[in-house]
Amino acid sequence: MSFITLTTDFGTKDHFVGAVKGAIYSELSDAKIVDITHEISPFNITETAYILKNSYKSFPDGTIHIVGVDSELSEDNKHIAIELDNHFFVCPDNGLISMIASEIQPTKIVEINIHDRIESSFPVLDVFVQVACFIARGGNLTVIGKEIFDFKKIIEIQPKVNQQQNQIIGGIVYIDNYGNVITNISHKMFKEIGKGRDFVVNARNHSFSKIFTKYNEVASNSSYTNQQYEGHKLALFNSAGYLEIAIYRSNLDTVGGASTLLGLGYRDSIIIDFITEPKKEFTSLN
Amino acid sequence: MSFITLTTDFGTKDHFVGAVKGAIYSELSDAKIVDITHEISPFNITETAYILKNSYKSFPDGTIHIVGVDSELSEDNKHIAIELDNHFFVCPDNGLISMIASEIQPTKIVEINIHDRIESSFPVLDVFVQVACFIARGGNLTVIGKEIFDFKKIIEIQPKVNQQQNQIIGGIVYIDNYGNVITNISHKMFKEIGKGRDFVVNARNHSFSKIFTKYNEVASNSSYTNQQYEGHKLALFNSAGYLEIAIYRSNLDTVGGASTLLGLGYRDSIIIDFITEPKKEFTSLN
Amino acid sequence: MSFITLTTDFGTKDHFVGAVKGAIYSELSDAKIVDITHEISPFNITETAYILKNSYKSFPDGTIHIVGVDSELSEDNKHIAIELDNHFFVCPDNGLISMIASEIQPTKIVEINIHDRIESSFPVLDVFVQVACFIARGGNLTVIGKEIFDFKKIIEIQPKVNQQQNQIIGGIVYIDNYGNVITNISHKMFKEIGKGRDFVVNARNHSFSKIFTKYNEVASNSSYTNQQYEGHKLALFNSAGYLEIAIYRSNLDTVGGASTLLGLGYRDSIIIDFITEPKKEFTSLN
Repeated sequence: MSFITLTTDFGTKDHFVGAVKGAIYSELSDAKIVDITHEISPFNITETAYILKNSYKSFPDGTIHIVGVDSELSEDNKHIAIELDNHFFVCPDNGLISMIASEIQPTKIVEINIHDRIESSFPVLDVFVQVACFIARGGNLTVIGKEIFDFKKIIEIQPKVNQQQNQIIGGIVYIDNYGNVITNISHKMFKEIGKGRDFVVNARNHSFSKIFTKYNEVASNSSYTNQQYEGHKLALFNSAGYLEIAIYRSNLDTVGGASTLLGLGYRDSIIIDFITEPKKEFTSLN
Repeated sequence: MSFITLTTDFGTKDHFVGAVKGAIYSELSDAKIVDITHEISPFNITETAYILKNSYKSFPDGTIHIVGVDSELSEDNKHIAIELDNHFFVCPDNGLISMIASEIQPTKIVEINIHDRIESSFPVLDVFVQVACFIARGGNLTVIGKEIFDFKKIIEIQPKVNQQQNQIIGGIVYIDNYGNVITNISHKMFKEIGKGRDFVVNARNHSFSKIFTKYNEVASNSSYTNQQYEGHKLALFNSAGYLEIAIYRSNLDTVGGASTLLGLGYRDSIIIDFITEPKKEFTSLN
Repeated sequence: MSFITLTTDFGTKDHFVGAVKGAIYSELSDAKIVDITHEISPFNITETAYILKNSYKSFPDGTIHIVGVDSELSEDNKHIAIELDNHFFVCPDNGLISMIASEIQPTKIVEINIHDRIESSFPVLDVFVQVACFIARGGNLTVIGKEIFDFKKIIEIQPKVNQQQNQIIGGIVYIDNYGNVITNISHKMFKEIGKGRDFVVNARNHSFSKIFTKYNEVASNSSYTNQQYEGHKLALFNSAGYLEIAIYRSNLDTVGGASTLLGLGYRDSIIIDFITEPKKEFTSLN
């Protein structure tokens, strides 16, 4: 039995997802196919990278992840298969793997070369399914591709640190179902650069001096119910380990979320300033 | 093999659902995971209750239902596991179970107490999956929680009857995919209170003196095709057994549905007046 | 083990899909249920036909396809079960099968007659599930229905050819997730009628003299990157074999798609004019 996941921008209305699942089951009737998502914004590689990074790890070792986002074959956009962290990824070489592979070195990468037989405007169905089923049957990557040693990187998903090491300049990479905005600044980076210093998170004209780890930490005064804190803004490190700006108990269809209420959009900058010399000590020196 | 269902407000774009499924399969590779829905309006407990009540029963006995709506742990919002009607529910104690449990007494309820090990902003992944897999393996509820004998109730999903027993005051608890509005008034209650009397259903400035049991009963004149009845309003007891106000063959994207065309919204009142003394008899008495 | 697919207009929020899956698993615990889609526009038979035609074939032989679109039973709208191309379809007789059956003759059609036991406003749950599970267990169609030899046809999904055989008049039958518009003109028909002649595709005030087979063929000048071609319009025969008018790398949420940018809507005409006497030869005759 093999687990095969699907992450695409196909949407769930068209025939694409059904056709792909049917093709997998026709090859491997006992496969377990799991949808990660089909709602990626069309051609959006950053979103794909964020979603994939935060879901693949929870699957069993040996799971094969098919990624169908911006996958039409071209000179600029090869098809690759990657073994990494005991998982397999079958995807275009358009940078989507770089968020995962920035932390974990791939074990093996091949450029898929079974295309001489297949010219297609629907490569997920015609190529990726075949490759995934081949891997599921225990096939070796080098049979369906030529080993390569590098892959495309995308820059925008990496935050920057200034020279004085007192500022992290990150950006919004994802807006979730609740309208919360998620940045590329990880808790790990925050701790490494911040070294326990005081800080201010700046998001447009909003600022935060605390970063929570649970949403309801914002409801700190126990003489109010949690419901009374609805609509409060907060910063937290989310369950994926990234800095998130949220509205407590938000709903995009009614009260709005951080994206709409605070005017924060995809690719906007989020800046953390560290206060290197704590105020009290500074004063006592004068 | 165990059936585990998921009912959440996560949406299907984010990584949440994929991460949860991966975690379940990592624990129980032969589980059968079924999505009930991930499209609950964020934090909406009434919607959750309605959907869960009308779907859980069709699953095999022993199915475990994970419910991830407003599930962050707090003093006000414990995590519970319930055995009821030969099904298991793993959910927050925020009232969502009360629509089911109003008719069927739970066999056992425990307050989950494995949290000393787990602090989390994503309890469905970190707590509910573990509890569900434990139950699926045949584990006893009292191992993962402390038995309790009550749970939170929500009031708004219960209609009221006036003292004279000639009026049911219900409310809209759900708007479905076709824009039909569904009330909390059950066919059972209607029969018990109405006792066969004539009645008028009042929904804003619209009224209905008949309640159908199939949509196309509105197309009563066989010299017209069913299509010619498109756009007619009707009241019916739907397949779930609740009073529904519908537009025949409606489509929210084009012609509209009962919600948009009749101006009926979530939580609006729907009133049934029973005519206690039928007109003819009343007149004959004078 | 049996494969059962679902194609409906139920949406994924309501309890309908969950209830149907639960009912199937209660009858056949080892069934493999696959969603083709639940996002059909309410009551839209043409969409259903297009999606079903382009997905059913990739499933293993013997797969049973439940179709729940406009399925309430009436005099005009019988329930049927069809064996065709080694697949089974359980659906209303409202024309949705005609796009598939226009090319492949059904092996057997029965009008389902188990309704004397079941009166229902939710026939997919109450009737189709039972029929599908009966077929999955190897049951013969004639046990659950009376053999019939015809089914409803829908006209609008068939393009027309003019008398001179130099014009195909097709229409838009589907708008996909990327905003691309898909016509009912197949590659097969184009070749049969066109016989290699030059042509112009007319879509409103837009025209195309080439039809590609891959999207990135529009990016023909290799001194530009594919990204620089974003927003270019093109005509192609898509992976389903139908003429499609597309915007290269479109996104309905941001830049728009062919539907919005070119003003092309569902049911609009798309006309291919064949140039019978090529211009050069015509001139040389003068």
